[in-house]
Amino acid sequence: MCHACVMDSVKARMLGTSEIGRRALFKGALGLAGVAAAGAALKPAPAMAQTPGQMADMTHMLHPDFPTFFGEQQFWEDQLFNFDEHGFNLKELRVNEHTGTHVDSPMHFSADGMSVDEIPVDKLIVPLAVVDIRARAAENADAQVTPDDLRAWMDRHGDLPAGACVAMNSGWGPKIDDPSFRNADGEGVMHFPGFHVEAVQMLMEEADVSGIAVDTLSLDHGMSPDFATHYAWLPSGRWGVECLANLDAVPATGATLIVGAPKHRRGTGGPARVFTLF
Amino acid sequence: MCHACVMDSVKARMLGTSEIGRRALFKGALGLAGVAAAGAALKPAPAMAQTPGQMADMTHMLHPDFPTFFGEQQFWEDQLFNFDEHGFNLKELRVNEHTGTHVDSPMHFSADGMSVDEIPVDKLIVPLAVVDIRARAAENADAQVTPDDLRAWMDRHGDLPAGACVAMNSGWGPKIDDPSFRNADGEGVMHFPGFHVEAVQMLMEEADVSGIAVDTLSLDHGMSPDFATHYAWLPSGRWGVECLANLDAVPATGATLIVGAPKHRRGTGGPARVFTLF
Repeated sequence: MCHACVMDSVKARMLGTSEIGRRALFKGALGLAGVAAAGAALKPAPAMAQTPGQMADMTHMLHPDFPTFFGEQQFWEDQLFNFDEHGFNLKELRVNEHTGTHVDSPMHFSADGMSVDEIPVDKLIVPLAVVDIRARAAENADAQVTPDDLRAWMDRHGDLPAGACVAMNSGWGPKIDDPSFRNADGEGVMHFPGFHVEAVQMLMEEADVSGIAVDTLSLDHGMSPDFATHYAWLPSGRWGVECLANLDAVPATGATLIVGAPKHRRGTGGPARVFTLF
Repeated sequence: MCHACVMDSVKARMLGTSEIGRRALFKGALGLAGVAAAGAALKPAPAMAQTPGQMADMTHMLHPDFPTFFGEQQFWEDQLFNFDEHGFNLKELRVNEHTGTHVDSPMHFSADGMSVDEIPVDKLIVPLAVVDIRARAAENADAQVTPDDLRAWMDRHGDLPAGACVAMNSGWGPKIDDPSFRNADGEGVMHFPGFHVEAVQMLMEEADVSGIAVDTLSLDHGMSPDFATHYAWLPSGRWGVECLANLDAVPATGATLIVGAPKHRRGTGGPARVFTLF
């Protein structure tokens, strides 16, 4: 398909029947600042324990039926162009920021905390500490990461690495395609593990931690009545990751977590691509 | 705000006046496969030349006025919840997959090529080779990366590293907030640099390259009449990144590029968080 054909086809779609055409057109107002320097963001790299030997993808595949905290659909797609008709494939996506494997920025639960685009790059590539509560969570879906779990981790592995992400492995990752991931009871109350507020208070007071991550739908356990962990942790300027995948594949210590957070202006979070190197 | 209040407020918004409420509700059909194993994706890590000392963010901030290839708005946001009223902040985003610093998957320009979620993780953390054509592009906005540029890079730095991404630094990154980034003339034809089709043919035939990246809006130069580079490169099963930021900050060789590609099912690409370690 030639350039002119593609452009015509785009114009027809954008100004025609597409939903996109009903929104304001791009006005060409690309800012008044002239040629602004792209914000350089050079930072010292994290200390990696050794040259990494393996990598793992910590990201669930996102799709329209991906389970959500609120129980309603939060991801939609619209194929605007298809190869047979237009010579190329292209979709428009609609997504609630807190869908899929995603980041919670401090602004998600604070009036004026850091937005997702403001999280410094050196807080997004950090040492990973994995706290394994799978055995307890298998017996009790309302289990939480407690200060005792953190102390047990440190007794075994030493101090938490500076700037670390502390991740809960509750065994919930492999449930992602099953109703037991949300695990709602007859009254709609969800039952899945999370961080106890006293555990994040301990991390804030006694360690240097950049973020926490969970393999469930929320930093708080599912039956939480008050988002206590969200309200304690995020306003402190630290981030969270929810619905992390593949924690079974990585070691308790020694891995580097790479959080490919989205970078839209004043975002409260968003779907992220997350990797580990170890 | 208590859990019940948040849930009520969510319910009111989702089933009430919000656009989200007019779409199909999530039906709880989370798949029939029972407890499916999360797709483990362990791969050998890339060979890094040395323990990295620095990191850089190669991602432009995304916002509603971000420049686009087609010249129309491609990113929208809707604040569904705000801290003052609901106790937390949350937005819904709408975005064309090919907006901001983003990935082109093979499927973007092929009938049945790899979608963005199918790109193997070890093709997303790769050595970076930066080809600098800034001087020529400053004289001629229609400049292209040619086989001669690739030969000059190899004469100076040796063979391209196995699995590399070859990135064009045309000096366009710092123009991102200025009309000179699209640089459309009176007839609407854009003028910015890209890869010549003969350069990508050479990369396919003579090297082992995973992807190419540009600091402009298209793998092809702006005035291309036929997307020749897209049609040659993407159907070969390799990816592209467009609108890469901050190439001035990284070395011509020795850096590792981390492409935080989105992972939505059958995506043709999407906004990505991109880092380098070096």
